[in-house]
Amino acid sequence: MNDRLIYLPLGGAGEVGMNAYVFGYGPKGKERLILVDIGVTFPDMDSSPGVDLIFPDISWLEANRDRLEAVFITHAHEDHVGALGHLYTRLGQPPVYARAFTGHLARLKMEEQGQDPARVSIAEPMPEMVEAGPFRVGFLPISHSIPESAGMVIDTPAGRVMHTADFKIDVTPVVGEAFDPAAWEAAAAPGVQALLCDSTNVFVERPGRSEASLASNLESLVAGAGGMVVATTFASNVARLKTLAEAGVRAGRSVCLMGRAMRRMLEAALETGVLEDFPPTVSPEDAAGVPRENLMLVVTGSQGERRAASAQLARGKYQGIELKAGDTFLFSSKTIPGNERGVLRIINQLSEIGVDVIDDATDRYHVSGHANRPDLERMHDIVKPKMVIPMHGEHRMLREHMKLAKSRGYASAIAPNGTMLDLTGDAPQVAEHVETSRIYLDGTAQIGALDGVVRDRIRMALNGHALVTLIIDEDGDPLGEPWCELSGLRESGRSRADLAEVIEGDLAQFMGRAGKKVLGDDDKLEDGLRRIVRNTAFNEIGKKPEVTVVISRLG
Amino acid sequence: MNDRLIYLPLGGAGEVGMNAYVFGYGPKGKERLILVDIGVTFPDMDSSPGVDLIFPDISWLEANRDRLEAVFITHAHEDHVGALGHLYTRLGQPPVYARAFTGHLARLKMEEQGQDPARVSIAEPMPEMVEAGPFRVGFLPISHSIPESAGMVIDTPAGRVMHTADFKIDVTPVVGEAFDPAAWEAAAAPGVQALLCDSTNVFVERPGRSEASLASNLESLVAGAGGMVVATTFASNVARLKTLAEAGVRAGRSVCLMGRAMRRMLEAALETGVLEDFPPTVSPEDAAGVPRENLMLVVTGSQGERRAASAQLARGKYQGIELKAGDTFLFSSKTIPGNERGVLRIINQLSEIGVDVIDDATDRYHVSGHANRPDLERMHDIVKPKMVIPMHGEHRMLREHMKLAKSRGYASAIAPNGTMLDLTGDAPQVAEHVETSRIYLDGTAQIGALDGVVRDRIRMALNGHALVTLIIDEDGDPLGEPWCELSGLRESGRSRADLAEVIEGDLAQFMGRAGKKVLGDDDKLEDGLRRIVRNTAFNEIGKKPEVTVVISRLG
Repeated sequence: MNDRLIYLPLGGAGEVGMNAYVFGYGPKGKERLILVDIGVTFPDMDSSPGVDLIFPDISWLEANRDRLEAVFITHAHEDHVGALGHLYTRLGQPPVYARAFTGHLARLKMEEQGQDPARVSIAEPMPEMVEAGPFRVGFLPISHSIPESAGMVIDTPAGRVMHTADFKIDVTPVVGEAFDPAAWEAAAAPGVQALLCDSTNVFVERPGRSEASLASNLESLVAGAGGMVVATTFASNVARLKTLAEAGVRAGRSVCLMGRAMRRMLEAALETGVLEDFPPTVSPEDAAGVPRENLMLVVTGSQGERRAASAQLARGKYQGIELKAGDTFLFSSKTIPGNERGVLRIINQLSEIGVDVIDDATDRYHVSGHANRPDLERMHDIVKPKMVIPMHGEHRMLREHMKLAKSRGYASAIAPNGTMLDLTGDAPQVAEHVETSRIYLDGTAQIGALDGVVRDRIRMALNGHALVTLIIDEDGDPLGEPWCELSGLRESGRSRADLAEVIEGDLAQFMGRAGKKVLGDDDKLEDGLRRIVRNTAFNEIGKKPEVTVVISRLG
Repeated sequence: MNDRLIYLPLGGAGEVGMNAYVFGYGPKGKERLILVDIGVTFPDMDSSPGVDLIFPDISWLEANRDRLEAVFITHAHEDHVGALGHLYTRLGQPPVYARAFTGHLARLKMEEQGQDPARVSIAEPMPEMVEAGPFRVGFLPISHSIPESAGMVIDTPAGRVMHTADFKIDVTPVVGEAFDPAAWEAAAAPGVQALLCDSTNVFVERPGRSEASLASNLESLVAGAGGMVVATTFASNVARLKTLAEAGVRAGRSVCLMGRAMRRMLEAALETGVLEDFPPTVSPEDAAGVPRENLMLVVTGSQGERRAASAQLARGKYQGIELKAGDTFLFSSKTIPGNERGVLRIINQLSEIGVDVIDDATDRYHVSGHANRPDLERMHDIVKPKMVIPMHGEHRMLREHMKLAKSRGYASAIAPNGTMLDLTGDAPQVAEHVETSRIYLDGTAQIGALDGVVRDRIRMALNGHALVTLIIDEDGDPLGEPWCELSGLRESGRSRADLAEVIEGDLAQFMGRAGKKVLGDDDKLEDGLRRIVRNTAFNEIGKKPEVTVVISRLG
């Protein structure tokens, strides 16, 4: 009677990245749950220095994992599947479902983290459905910038919910299934309670362009280039890899793929049959022997990643290949906001070599994988749901998408991470707020974003670090004078004397003045020493360093 | 006989920022010198955490400061005048020349750093010329996004050189002098040996737009808005401040300026007469009492700076004013590459409040201050120099600008920072390479970018920091066991035990095995302890921290 249908994003709603969407059905607080996607996002120096990967905070799901029936993966992008292996134990090792290509890569993710890859079951697309507690879930093919993306058709006792996954409306996607409006209309025909919908490109006013529209532009570019041609794109964009390689071959060039991620994606695509043919390629060793005007490289690193092939080639020789003046370097990609510095670094390094760079400003060699505003409107109208819930986007995108949906007559609400919506009625209602944050993978350890560990690193990076050691003898008297070591700070300041020595002088004076009461109290002593270090450093160099004090008491 | 005319950029050629261009005339190695501009650039967390400002490395000029006749400042943007006070002593305190508005702000820069503001002389525009050694230098007005920008007309025994400064071709700039093609043609009429030319917008194909084109767009926007309107732009864009304020007043709103930099710029503009009238404004205190639909704020922080008014308003109440759902926030500005994260943070925070944000994607409320490609072509053809030397731009911009100039029949060369060109002949020749880098202002101290100080901070931020202390007694035996403290690292790892304790256990074992030879040798001991810390941490948490070892030897 009081069963309800709930939706709870734990990641992906309020950012582009680390998607994790929970659906539940049942009595309040006892809903049976499924999870759609479990992705990562990437760290940056500003907010998460030294961190390797960022996961959604699944504490709520972990606490309720006995209610979790299954995990469904919509497609194989890192922001949808990247955290699966890392968080699988914490999720209680539930069954995982994905289509063949996605499942192939999901299994690799499991293996890498020591999980059983056989826990990932390969699902066929609709009309087949997977049973999971009160849910029946179907995979409905949709076009995107990776093969075999799938929307989710989620049947519940409260009605059908549809989840677009990441999508674009592309009827000629080069690789993978074309968007099939009839299939989406058919799936929506019984009536749809709620449409969960990708919001990434809601601000882009023009209709989206097809992957197939790039081939002729790319062909003329490669055919017209003089020296070597290097093209970079997302490794997972198998259709683009194919279009690029075909452009190279048609221009009479040998094509060489560089970068581990790219080879891995192609292997997965070939093994699972989503890619049937790919132009012949040469190995980097063989490529080094090909005259540059007959060679085309397709490489990883379109986002400026320092260790990827693009960055390595911009810095110098990589796998025996070196760029020269007159070569052409193409970014067949868009720079994701926040990655501009890294990409510009590469472009300027290439400019120094004399390489001609073609970036995304031209708009001729890249199309987005996400539905633009008119395509979103079309999707709304194909599905005709009671309510449209924007997902997959920064807050400004969710908000704009909600406004768009409402302006066109659909009920809608913004649900950022941690906002549980009740989807049972005619309009979404906020049911609850759940604490969410982020989990940092730091080396091999997981730390909470709010634990303070990374905050301490940021402080050391901003302020430098001073270390004070002091020995107190058996009688409670200082043995010698305090010692100071500095890291990340200038050696001398205003007085031109060695800064550590100036600090040590002031620390010694403080010790001389300190009575038994202070000397006997580690906290007081530490506070006093810290204050001296910070004040003296500020006077000398205008900075107050982070301070660690170590007091060794003998006996 | 063997006198030559040289050009040496020390900053600004290879980046947008920290402009510093040296010109010299005389016998090789004994040229008398002038410096045009001495600006700053801004640090970022990726490469310069904790740094306050970045200056060009003027070591070469400092070593040759007895040859430096004068400094000329083209305009008052921070990247042209910001380092004046900081580096003035190192430059040997030469005479400084600038026009009235620029000089007013340059004098403030001098005062702030304890320099004599009277060393800045106010120069009248051409036909007046300033004598400086073998040079006669004239200020030739040009339009830009700050009042009173001036190109430099530099007469030398080897001919006339012209330096555009930052410029756009704007015949209706709202505030300040309109671009006057006749004046530039007249200045170029005697024949120009070399044109040093702004490269910032060489990739923008369409002609530049006038500042005056914005007024009607801004007026309709403000008039159509429901709640409070907040607009942010560069504080130094006095024309924009005026257009924004006028749009507010015409829409029947009280206008309030927020942000120290903005008030300072307006004061300078009014005091020096470059701005004759400005609409009436109200103070923040009075603004708090104005109904929101009758209020417009013009605020600093268009680049997402955390402490500026925009960021403060996005986070909550600021100076008694708080944004609400239904308010409108306009970025009348472009996001400088690298600042995207900060700007997006603000936009999303505003979205959470329910504020409608209008950003630079619309292209209706901002125009650039730099000449676009067709405008550069026009400038080349007005001046008709023997050679065009691109300046003020990233390497890719300089390279494109050189290609553009050459394609149109001008001799040209790329001279990134540290490349000395000989401009005496018919085409530029590379004369010499000078070591250049960057100087970091860090607190109150100046440090070299390559000194390693900031590198150590970055390492601590990426890897965390471990500190080991050890006491060796009078007999050369360890007194107690080594002690370990961690900063910026997870407390426990694989074994679930306290990480510092696990490390201490391994350190104690190492000490137990260490013979007298190791115990007596600080270097060996330190190496051994460091290796243990790094290995144990790596086993436990997959990270190798930075390690500081302090060995205290008693007696």
